[in-house]
Formats: sequence, C-alpha cells, structure tokens
Amino acid sequence: MRALVVPVGNPRAVAVHEDYPTPQPGPDEVLIRVLLAGVCATDLEIVRGYLRFAGVPGHEFVGVVLDGPPALHGRRVVADINCPCGACDACRAGQGRHCPHRTVLGIAGRDGAFAELLTVPAANCHVVPEEVPDEAAVFAEPLAAAAHVLDAVTLTPQTRVAVLGTGRLGLLVAQVLRAARQAAPPGPGALHVIGRNPLTLARCRSWGLEAVALRDRTPQADYDVVVECSGAPDGLRLALRLTRPQGTIVLKSTYAEPEPVDLAPLVIHEQRLVGSRCGTLPRALDLLRHRTVDVASLVTATYALREGAAALAAAADPAHVKVLIRP
Amino acid sequence: MRALVVPVGNPRAVAVHEDYPTPQPGPDEVLIRVLLAGVCATDLEIVRGYLRFAGVPGHEFVGVVLDGPPALHGRRVVADINCPCGACDACRAGQGRHCPHRTVLGIAGRDGAFAELLTVPAANCHVVPEEVPDEAAVFAEPLAAAAHVLDAVTLTPQTRVAVLGTGRLGLLVAQVLRAARQAAPPGPGALHVIGRNPLTLARCRSWGLEAVALRDRTPQADYDVVVECSGAPDGLRLALRLTRPQGTIVLKSTYAEPEPVDLAPLVIHEQRLVGSRCGTLPRALDLLRHRTVDVASLVTATYALREGAAALAAAADPAHVKVLIRP
Repeated sequence: MRALVVPVGNPRAVAVHEDYPTPQPGPDEVLIRVLLAGVCATDLEIVRGYLRFAGVPGHEFVGVVLDGPPALHGRRVVADINCPCGACDACRAGQGRHCPHRTVLGIAGRDGAFAELLTVPAANCHVVPEEVPDEAAVFAEPLAAAAHVLDAVTLTPQTRVAVLGTGRLGLLVAQVLRAARQAAPPGPGALHVIGRNPLTLARCRSWGLEAVALRDRTPQADYDVVVECSGAPDGLRLALRLTRPQGTIVLKSTYAEPEPVDLAPLVIHEQRLVGSRCGTLPRALDLLRHRTVDVASLVTATYALREGAAALAAAADPAHVKVLIRP
Repeated sequence: MRALVVPVGNPRAVAVHEDYPTPQPGPDEVLIRVLLAGVCATDLEIVRGYLRFAGVPGHEFVGVVLDGPPALHGRRVVADINCPCGACDACRAGQGRHCPHRTVLGIAGRDGAFAELLTVPAANCHVVPEEVPDEAAVFAEPLAAAAHVLDAVTLTPQTRVAVLGTGRLGLLVAQVLRAARQAAPPGPGALHVIGRNPLTLARCRSWGLEAVALRDRTPQADYDVVVECSGAPDGLRLALRLTRPQGTIVLKSTYAEPEPVDLAPLVIHEQRLVGSRCGTLPRALDLLRHRTVDVASLVTATYALREGAAALAAAADPAHVKVLIRP
C-alpha cells in the first residue's frame, strides 16, 4: 500500500512508499481504510527526531472499518491513539493511556494514519455520528486534547485565562475555553488569546475572542491560568512571565530538543506547571456534533497522500493552519 | 559595622568589610543585633550571580531587637524574609510574600543577616519561645520553607513520597514529612529519602527514615510525589523520572543558571510541577518548640563573621551540612 514513512535513524528523510506492507490486524484489532488524516505539530517534531519514531506517522484520522467486529464493520470511526497492554497496574487502574508498555499510533511503536490502511485495537474505536462530516471528524483527536485542558484546571467565572499560541492546537483550545465560559455564569474573568500571527489572531476575533498580538503586549503576570500551546521553545518562558504568582501554566507543547528554561521564577512565584496530553474522543465528537467549535475553517490545505512530504512541509509554514492528507 | 558584602557586578568577590554603614531603621522597622545566621544554598547561588544581588547576603537568622516597639524591644526574634510594599493588589489580598514590589532580606533589594546588625519591618518579626535555643531558632526560616511543602501537596496514608536530595533543605523536608506521616493514620504509602551522600543518608536512617543511595536505585516512576531538594541542576530530570504519570513534583531548588530540561515527559506523563518557596515562621517555631525535627545535629561548623567568606566556601563542600555564622 501507499504510506508516508519515517526511516530508521534519519527521520528527516521521510518519504512516500508505494509498496509499504499492508498491515494485518492482530487479535482484537480492526483494519481501517483512512478517509482523511490531519498533520499535527507532533508529526513535525517526529520528523525532527522526537521520540526517535520510525515507521508511518500520523495519529489524527477518520476512517472506515474494513475488517472488524459487527458493531464496527463498515462504520466510520476515529480512534484513541494510546494502545495499552491491558495487563499492567496502570491498565488495571483504568489509566491505560499512561500504560508504560503502550504503543501510540504513529508516535511510538505502532504505524499511524498517513497511509491507505492502518490497524488499531477495536476497543480504541469510536463511531462517528452521521451528522459529523469527515472534514470535522478528523479533528476529533486534537479537539479531545484541547478539551482535556478543562481536566487540568478548575475555571470559575472569575478566572483570567490566556491561551498562548494561535496555531492548530491554540485555536482549538481557545474555542473550547470560550464554550466553557459561555456555559458558566458571567463573571469578571477574562479569556485572551495571545499570539504572533495576524491571520490567526484575526480568526480568533471573528469568533468573538479577545486576541492580543504579542508585540503589542508587555507580558504582565496577571493571568490565573496560561495554556501554553505555542509549540515554540520560548513559549514556556513567556508563559511563566504571563502567569500570576501561585497561578497555573498548562503545558501542551512538546519539543524534540530540550530547551534551557530558567525555572527559578516557578519556585519564586510558586506557580504550577501541569502537563496535559490526550483527551477523550467521545467528548470531542460531542463538541463536533453540536458544532460548538469551528474546525472546518481551520483547514488551509488538503494534500493527496502521494504528496505527503509536501503536506508536512506545508504544515510547518506559518501561513497554514491545519493541513490534511487524503489517501 | 562588620558585614559580609557581595560587590556589585562581581558577586564572586564576596568579602568581609569592617566599616560597612550601620543600618538605620526606617518607619515601622526594627534594628536587630544578629546572634546567629545560617548559610543556605540560595546564598551560594547569589555568589554565583543568582538574581544579581549586591549588598549583604543572609536571610536565615536569630537576633535581638535593639530598637523597636515595646512588644519587640529586647526580645529574641526571627523574621519573615519578604518585605512587601503593603499597598498593591497582592498585599491587599494578604499575599505580601508575592508582592511584586517587595524586597527580600539578603536576596533582593535589602541587606541581610551576614552582618552585626540589620533592619527589618517590625511586622516581619516573630518572638522566639524561651525554650528554643539560638542554635535551633536560626533554622526557623529554612524549616518554614521545608514545612511549606505540606501546602503544595495533599498527602494521604496511601501516598508514596520521595525526597530527592539530602542537603540542608532535604534533611529538613524529610523530617517534616516524617512527622506528618506519624501524625496520620498508618497506610500503605512510603517516604523515601534519595541522595548521593553516604553521611547524610546515614543521618536519615538514624532518624528512622528509609534512605536510598542514588547509585543503588534505577529510577522508577513509582512515586506519587517527589520533592526536589537536590539543589543540583540535574535534580529535576531525575525527579521527572521518579514520579508516576499524573504525579506531582514539588520544586524547591533554584539555580543561578538556566538548565536545559526536557519537559516533554511532563506533558506525556501529565505530571504536575509545583514551585514552593517560603513558609510561615510560627509553624516552624512550633516544630522547633516541640522538637519535632532534629536541627542541632545538622550544624557541622560555626564560623565567626570575620571568616564569612570561608563559611560560604565550607557550605559549598558536601562534607558539611549546615554552616552557621556568628557575628
């Protein structure tokens, strides 16, 4: 089959293969034909060497089950990316996404979705509601990760929140937080989106969000919560400066390269830094079904799989927001 | 008067001056004769350039009020090191120790205790109970910082805790946590002290603590809480490896130099990193009055103030634990 492949030991030499072995579903796995896949910052980091992944990248997708149990056969699905062992202490405690033996779709030990076909555990699949088109369903995984910010912090109508970064993830996080605020009683809190890109800042304003250009703002330590989605290594340094003493920074970004960060301010100001990763797909599908967030307008390009390497290059260009790959 | 002085622009040239200007108490301040002062890792970082401090370092002390209001005059006191402005939002909210305009004794904008005399706001002073000798009272400030760990995390009888580092601060934190565990119902949790120094590990064992030599232990991610007191730049990296997914690292150490730390594991494992600084002196004085922690045996040397530079050098030597300075 056709697949985008990260070679062992030389991730930057990522290229499309036409004769990559067709995956064979193991016990309790399903075979899926990929309809649409999304490029994420993590994919770009993988090509820079993050986690030393080799194989087929891609973990955001929607597909059709070609071979699986009756409840899934022929259905349109999205899938949890963490494939736990099912037997260890973490798995038995219901924390499979922190299973130390897990594989992760297109990220660790398991081929991903930048291919015509892939296999995933049947238990990972979630059927996509009819009313959610492919172009929205492909956002289920990153939207779940965005909504997971709500599990890391308690927001009240008084909370002053900043979303740092207006890339793929920041735009989803900002919309999720806006919806959470709208669902709560009104209060003196605030939700600001802070970024550098005039295009995406304008997009935020079109959604009714207060968007602040980074160059216009001297960072002030007046946010209770800062969600760091910049994907830039200096994002954490800025987040530390934007957060009030005893405030919380939710860290969503991961990088291939360790970055020197002066964490003395975290100690001096007694701030909290909370790592946040994947969320739950049913919550994301629910947000998509109710059209609580606008995802369609984030897509700036869709590439054929045979142009997968060009899709990665485009996704690294700040002129693009979401780049999709269609096998 | 005699004082140890960090010169502007060249902190390593710290030296004793015999004719440093005698401090004059401002309004609402008291003049204190220092009886005994303690050397802290922060003092050593200051001499390496931390916070670009210039002046008299030293923030751990016990002294006698020479000039002050009747309630304090002639009394033996310890003092909060943060001197807030009293007027800003943080101060009005009762968060003076996070006042952005504050000075900090011997650390930021205000001379400290490695001198014959110093001035502090009267409101910062706490009278030392009669039964607490000078040699114990001088530990009030670091002990308060150690006990403040209990404000950063909720410990239950199930909690598995590791204290990383057996230096000055680690030995106090370990004892405070031991006391907290003893005061709680028994449970399956654990309290381990992890360090490199055989002498201080043996000290921990003499207190009935389970002490683990770092070279004997392959770091396993099985602690719910790790308190990072190593004072070593690689301490945070190790703490990240010792902490379970979704566990908490309490960061007590600050360094002069930003250190490259790969924070991707924090995101992947959704850990929490909580900065923790100063605590409250009444709590520390209470622990000292009840002899809940052993501080006397931590003192490995007491230097005269005229040998203040040698005291700093000794405090940097792993053979020493607590080094005191007597003016």
